[in-house]
Parts: sequence; structure tokens; C-alpha cells
Amino acid sequence: MSLITVPVALGARSYDVLIGADALEAGAARLPAFCPRGRALIAADRAAFAAHGERLLAAVKAAGLTPLVREIEGGESAKTWAGLEALTGWMLDQNMERGEALIAFGGGTVGDLAGFAAAVMKRGCAFVQIPTTLLAQVDSSVGGKTGINTRQGKNLAGAFHQPALVIADTGVLATLPAREIRAGYAEVVKAGLIAGADLFARLEALGPQALDGPDLVRAIADAVAFKARIVAEDERERGVRALLNLGHTFAHAFEAEARKGELIHGEAVAAGLVLAFRYAVRRGLCPPADAARAEAHIAAAGLPARIADLPGGPYDAARLVGRMGSDKKNAGGAITLVLARAIGAAELAPGADPADLTAFLAQEIVR
Amino acid sequence: MSLITVPVALGARSYDVLIGADALEAGAARLPAFCPRGRALIAADRAAFAAHGERLLAAVKAAGLTPLVREIEGGESAKTWAGLEALTGWMLDQNMERGEALIAFGGGTVGDLAGFAAAVMKRGCAFVQIPTTLLAQVDSSVGGKTGINTRQGKNLAGAFHQPALVIADTGVLATLPAREIRAGYAEVVKAGLIAGADLFARLEALGPQALDGPDLVRAIADAVAFKARIVAEDERERGVRALLNLGHTFAHAFEAEARKGELIHGEAVAAGLVLAFRYAVRRGLCPPADAARAEAHIAAAGLPARIADLPGGPYDAARLVGRMGSDKKNAGGAITLVLARAIGAAELAPGADPADLTAFLAQEIVR
Repeated sequence: MSLITVPVALGARSYDVLIGADALEAGAARLPAFCPRGRALIAADRAAFAAHGERLLAAVKAAGLTPLVREIEGGESAKTWAGLEALTGWMLDQNMERGEALIAFGGGTVGDLAGFAAAVMKRGCAFVQIPTTLLAQVDSSVGGKTGINTRQGKNLAGAFHQPALVIADTGVLATLPAREIRAGYAEVVKAGLIAGADLFARLEALGPQALDGPDLVRAIADAVAFKARIVAEDERERGVRALLNLGHTFAHAFEAEARKGELIHGEAVAAGLVLAFRYAVRRGLCPPADAARAEAHIAAAGLPARIADLPGGPYDAARLVGRMGSDKKNAGGAITLVLARAIGAAELAPGADPADLTAFLAQEIVR
Repeated sequence: MSLITVPVALGARSYDVLIGADALEAGAARLPAFCPRGRALIAADRAAFAAHGERLLAAVKAAGLTPLVREIEGGESAKTWAGLEALTGWMLDQNMERGEALIAFGGGTVGDLAGFAAAVMKRGCAFVQIPTTLLAQVDSSVGGKTGINTRQGKNLAGAFHQPALVIADTGVLATLPAREIRAGYAEVVKAGLIAGADLFARLEALGPQALDGPDLVRAIADAVAFKARIVAEDERERGVRALLNLGHTFAHAFEAEARKGELIHGEAVAAGLVLAFRYAVRRGLCPPADAARAEAHIAAAGLPARIADLPGGPYDAARLVGRMGSDKKNAGGAITLVLARAIGAAELAPGADPADLTAFLAQEIVR
């Protein structure tokens, strides 16, 4: 099987993303460089480990390492202060040293938590991402954003901490529910909508086929390569990287408001992408035809394109806008959004008026 | 009054340390650059704020800022996961934005906690240190080490996060107990012992006079300038910066073992410095005369030079060595120490044998 290697160029913090159906075995062979004491400290999502732990352990042992596994219950509820304390406590109980890496095996939540734990462990240990969901493979495992949620919102505490290696094995995706695959695909679509009119057009042409097989491997690699370029240009989100949040300020608000456990991130992103286009149309920034095209592709992929389609509701416009007020991009007390000028052209739009946003969302909720 | 400015040269993360009896007023005038929303978010040690809060608030208001104060009970017990969650929760409740700085007003514990909170707040906010103890002024507030304690030991979770400004006002030291002044002086002595034979000779010549008045201001500035050079050379402690831990592996073990609240950090450092010399003598690395000279000056300053003089004991050699096993400098399962070759010449000594260390400490305990 072919292995695609996408480099993320960040000077001394550069690393590779390995993508393919056998990436796990190829990547494990590189692990000893990050495990100087001959042991592999692994923070593993319980469900992912149940499904693929045997293969993971075999690959780690074949690389000559002794695995030490800490299982973690996945989902956003893992990303708490208590979860961080428990995981770092386990790492300290293993007497983990600065030269050793923590290996995250699971979806985005385990990766975000483990990455943050590695970032603060003895003021900074390396970590390796082995994302086991499509969402994590195309998005959260690349770029070094780590963190936890607080009662005030998602990802409000965390660190920029780049992984030393990312192993995106597409073989493990076979056990994912179709809903999870679709949700991950939302981030692939996002890549096309931000700065890849060509990528978006190709995804449109592929239709549902883009969600499976070699076309999916290629789509993952394209989305990762796109993200790698952005991250290399602006590691700490002082400029262009903020564009990767297209639709995400809306998405985070939905996630904060949703009934617990009902809404998954990629679904919120899908609806958020459509809203980023439609609000841009309302403000005269974007041609209506582009918004319609984005919405049509998202709906065709089986993703929620309207707020009414989103699980976890009903949603209230004023409460959503309240949540948006605590976004990390905000400055000067105003709400900063990433909006779409066209397919493949996103831009930062500071100073959204909360009253106007509330009116807009109230209309969208009943659309 | 004169103001001494010591620059810490770290490229884009460079900053100034202002030292003097009026540094608070001079430094506050610089705060608006870090407070774009016109408000000063302050994490303040309760005791320091009770003693000097009025002066702090006047200086902040004179700079045109509205102060928002979160009082924190000082002491090592503040540096916990719960303390971090509470402080970051307060910052989020104030809707703190990435562009705003957190201002730490207090001793090393409040500075370490607040610096860590700023480091993880929305993945990184600026912070300003206003250290109110001698210990924090000469050591912990410069260099960007932040963190909390865990049940496994001190400072085991944290971040390298440089302040944007450090304001070391020597006027606030007037309300400190003599014991705290002596404890802070231990870190000044440390600077001389590591790489400043000239500084150490001057401190020796001054005797107790170094602990007060203009001589103290000069000693603080010398110690800060020394530390600034080391930090500029090795921000993330991959080499020479580890030398700043002379005596500290011993000190942290004492602190972990001491009866709660009885031992203060500088005292543990004082005894640790002597042990770093005496263990180096045992290993044939250091002339006995240099160890005797270091010990004599520490004792003359009224600091504990022998384990028997240390508050919080009695101490057990095997338990101390067990604590030393989880130090952040360790590699390959062995204990790494910073030892003294001579006055003004420290070096990293990897691979200390736990049995030999235990035998050494057992002798030192009954000396």
C-alpha cells in the first residue's frame, strides 16, 4: 500500500504526517527516536483501543518498545481539568522524563487532552499523534493546538504544542460509524472552502465517492497539506491561521448549547460553514451563488446544512451569540468571525454587531 | 531614586526587569501597552495586597487603567491544579482576551501560578510580574518558568512562558520578615556560586550589609543580570540553564519531605547549595576549601547550612533520595545533579548513584 508523507515545515519543530492504510506499522518503526527509555507511553481512547489496540501493540512491540497504556474515555467530557490532572498524574507515576514522548491514540478529544498534558509535563515533553477518526486525521492532530474545555466554553485553556510525528492510518477508519466519517469530511470541505477552489471543485465532482477508499486517502492528504501550509506560515494564529476557523465560531456556540452528547463537532462545523457563507451574503461580502454551492455540497454529503437539521437543538439565537462572545479570536469586546468572500476565499471579519448576529441567527433557526 | 533596568534578551520575547525603590510607579506607567482594553487584570497575593495594595492600585489608576483584582492565598498550597482552575476560571469570567496581560502581584508562588494561568489561557496570554518577595525578585520572576506542584513533587506541571515586563520594587520588601529576606538572599548567593566568583567575593566582603539598603538593590540587579544572561543563552533549559538548579534537587526533596508550612524555599536552597558543594567534594570534583567557604558565608547570612539546621525535619536519607528520583533534569532513570567544581563554577553531573547519595545524606543528617 502506498504511504503519503506530508511534511509540516516549522523549523526546529518540523514533523511529518504519514497517511495511508498501513501508516501505523510504518510510523511505529519511527517511534524509538522519541522513546529513549525503550518504553512507549500511550494515552489511548478506550473505544479505539478496543477496536485496534492489538494492532497498535503489535506495531509498537515490533519496533522494540514496551507499551504502557493509559485508557481514556473519549468524547468532549475527557477534556477537563480533572482529565488533565489524571493523565499527567499517570505520566508522573510512570516517572516520565522530559526526553520521552507521550503517544496519543484516539480521536480529537484524546489528542487535544494528551497534547496539552505533554505540553505541561515537566514544562514540555514531546508527543506523537495517532488519530483514529477522520476528523482528527484531517484537522486536530496537525498544527499543535491542544487544550481542554471549561465551563465557559470549548478549548479555552490549552497550549500550542506541535507533535513530533503524526500517524494517520486510514485502515482504522473502517470501524467508524458513517456519521463520524461524514463529520470528519466537514473539515475536508472546509479546506476547500477556505483556500482551495480547485480542491472544492474536485470534491464536488467526486460526490459521495470522496468519503471512501483511495479518494478519501487523497482527500485527507490534500486537506492535511493545505493545513500544513497555513500552520507553517502562522504557527500561533496571529494572522492567516485564524482562517482555519471558518464556521467554527458558530460551531463552538452550537456545541456549547447542544444537549450533552447529541451533537458532534464535524456536524456543528458543517452548519457553521454554511452560516459563515450566508452571514457573509447578508453583509454583502459574498455572492449568493457561492453560498448556495457550499450549502448544496454539504447537504449532498449527508451533513446538516441548516440549523434545523442540527442534532442537540433547539437552539436560541441570543444564547448562541452569548457563547460567541467568549471566542479566543475576539478583540476589544467585539465578536470576530471568519467569513467567506467566495468559494476558496475566507477572511477575518472583526467587529460583528451582536444584535445583527442575533437577528441573523433567529432567521436561520426557522429557515 | 534610581531605577536599574536589566534587559532579558530573548528575541521577540525580550523584556525588561525594572529594579528600584520606586519601580512600581515607573513600571505601572508601562502597563497600558499590555492592557488594550483599559483594564488591569491582577492576580494578587492576599498578604502582599493587604500591605501594598493601596500603592499598587494608585499606580495602576495613575496609568489610566481600571484594576480588576483576584486575591490568592499565597504559599505553595496555591500552586495546585485546583488553584489553576480557579484562577483561569476567574480570567474567563472576566472575558479576558488574548491581547490582554495578566499581572501577578506577590511572591514566587503567585507568580508561578499566574504565569502558568496566562500561558494556558486561550493558549497564551501575556503576563507581567510584580514580585513582592526578595526570592521572587532575584529568581522566580525572571526567566519564564511557571508551574504548579502535584502530589508527586514541586513544579512538575508547567510551561516556559516569559513575562512581558518584570517590576521588582524594593520598597515593598520593607514589610517582609527578616527570615524571608534571608531566604531570598540564598538565591543571590547561588548566582555567585554558579558563575560569579567576583560577585561572591563582593557578597563575602559586604557580609550582612548585603541584605539591606542600596547594597541589596545592587545585589538584586547583579543576580538578575546573571540570570538574564543564562536565560538568554538557553531559554528552555537544554544546557547551561540547568546550572541555575545548583542545590535545587536537594532543596526540592527537602521541601517535599518537610512538615507542611515549616520550611521555606530559600532555606532549602541554602542547605542544598552546601550539599552540592559537599557532595562534589565527596566525589573528588571540588576542593574542600571552596565548600567550606560557601558554607561559611551561608551560615554567616543566618541561613541553614546543615540539614540539622533546616526547619521541617527530621529528614530521612532514603526518602530524600526517593524524591530526587522524579526531578525534571533526570534522564535514563538516573539522578542528575548540578554540582560545584569550585566557587563560581557549577556543572551538570549525570548518573548519581542512589545508594551513594543515600549514604552521603545519612552522614549529612547527623553532621
